[in-house]
Amino acid sequence: MRLARIQTPLGPRPVVQDGSKWAVVKDLFADEPESTGEFYPVDGAQLLAPAQPMVVLGMAHNNGPSDRLLAPQAFSKSARSVVGPGQAIELDTSLGEINIEGELAVVIGRSCRRLTPEQVPGVILGYCIGNDVTNVDQASLDEKATQVKNGDGYTPLGPWIETELDADHVHIDVRLDGKPVASSNTDRLAWAISEQLVALTRYLTLGPGDVLLTGSPTTWATITPGQQAEITIEGIGTLSNPAIAVPQA
Amino acid sequence: MRLARIQTPLGPRPVVQDGSKWAVVKDLFADEPESTGEFYPVDGAQLLAPAQPMVVLGMAHNNGPSDRLLAPQAFSKSARSVVGPGQAIELDTSLGEINIEGELAVVIGRSCRRLTPEQVPGVILGYCIGNDVTNVDQASLDEKATQVKNGDGYTPLGPWIETELDADHVHIDVRLDGKPVASSNTDRLAWAISEQLVALTRYLTLGPGDVLLTGSPTTWATITPGQQAEITIEGIGTLSNPAIAVPQA
Repeated sequence: MRLARIQTPLGPRPVVQDGSKWAVVKDLFADEPESTGEFYPVDGAQLLAPAQPMVVLGMAHNNGPSDRLLAPQAFSKSARSVVGPGQAIELDTSLGEINIEGELAVVIGRSCRRLTPEQVPGVILGYCIGNDVTNVDQASLDEKATQVKNGDGYTPLGPWIETELDADHVHIDVRLDGKPVASSNTDRLAWAISEQLVALTRYLTLGPGDVLLTGSPTTWATITPGQQAEITIEGIGTLSNPAIAVPQA
Repeated sequence: MRLARIQTPLGPRPVVQDGSKWAVVKDLFADEPESTGEFYPVDGAQLLAPAQPMVVLGMAHNNGPSDRLLAPQAFSKSARSVVGPGQAIELDTSLGEINIEGELAVVIGRSCRRLTPEQVPGVILGYCIGNDVTNVDQASLDEKATQVKNGDGYTPLGPWIETELDADHVHIDVRLDGKPVASSNTDRLAWAISEQLVALTRYLTLGPGDVLLTGSPTTWATITPGQQAEITIEGIGTLSNPAIAVPQA
């Protein structure tokens, strides 16, 4: 099933795909989302970020098998950094080099804490594409990552949420201005998604709409103003966002 | 002016104090909050967390004058960790020692980015008391602080927001079960509030309801299940929260 949020003349609406139409539903997080009877054509619909998280976590050092030598660890991203497909990533080049990171994003469906591996499938609503934009040169200055991970438009999510996905085995392709710059697979991540959620919910509660960026299996590239970032994940689709320069003080 | 959120028979409502009554307003963040005509007695009202932040930041190493040797730095707390007066702090003692930290909390009134010192007063809605509950023994394991700062009930805020306060010069008193355990003043903080906001908004946007925990001028104490935390800040009031044990797995 494909879930999304679209802009409509009545405002943003949660929707479920029904053939060539988006069916508006009352609650994306209901066990069986109930249609309101409103429909919009899939073609030409303006997609918004498919989740409105209170909490956005991103896996640190989860780039390849050797990262299993370290315990799973996550950083926080600001919920205000979330944008949807086509929205701008605002680059402040006075902060140094800036990377995009193409990642599989888990969208949480229900409140969860201290998960066991068996409980994990029941709390995942689905998966979308995430772009974990990163101020690379700030990393050595701020190990807490607040100044590394949080610019405006630094967490593009989209284009929609797929509820069925073999999430630990999907290809990720990253392009800049249409040119391939990185390619890998979630099977290269050190920690599988279930392991990530078990580890992190020992420390905090996640709830409906929260997002876990599962880590970049070396699917990164440096981006400069004027470039278009595109991330394609097998079984989901493509998330595209332009990068623009912010005015310098 | 004193602003709050209270529970009413109609649900949570933003309110402004008018003598012995809370006057319900349409929007706490309006330049001049407009009354709805509903009033509730101040006595006996159930106070909720006065802010519903999307972003909660807390100042790191801002405990005394010598911390000016380091650049201002902040960690993120989960918006889901926010609770109001009287709500429980849930202690998982398997994580080691847990501290309360009595801090002045800034509540942001409007969207802001790349603030100049002159702009800071215009973006602050007011001040409340914050308790920055901390898994002390996790700090050496997670420099990103995700597993240090984010348990359930780990960010008590309250009891209300004072819009007028000499915020860089107010006393903070911390008590456990009525016994004084720490006492200091915000004038001991390394970085003044204006300096904090100028530094942090270089990296990210803050918006209405967001909260900055301004740092603990050594106003901390170890807490154990069954104890009652009380933080008093001059010119605001007292924030009290009980600590309970979470069931161990």
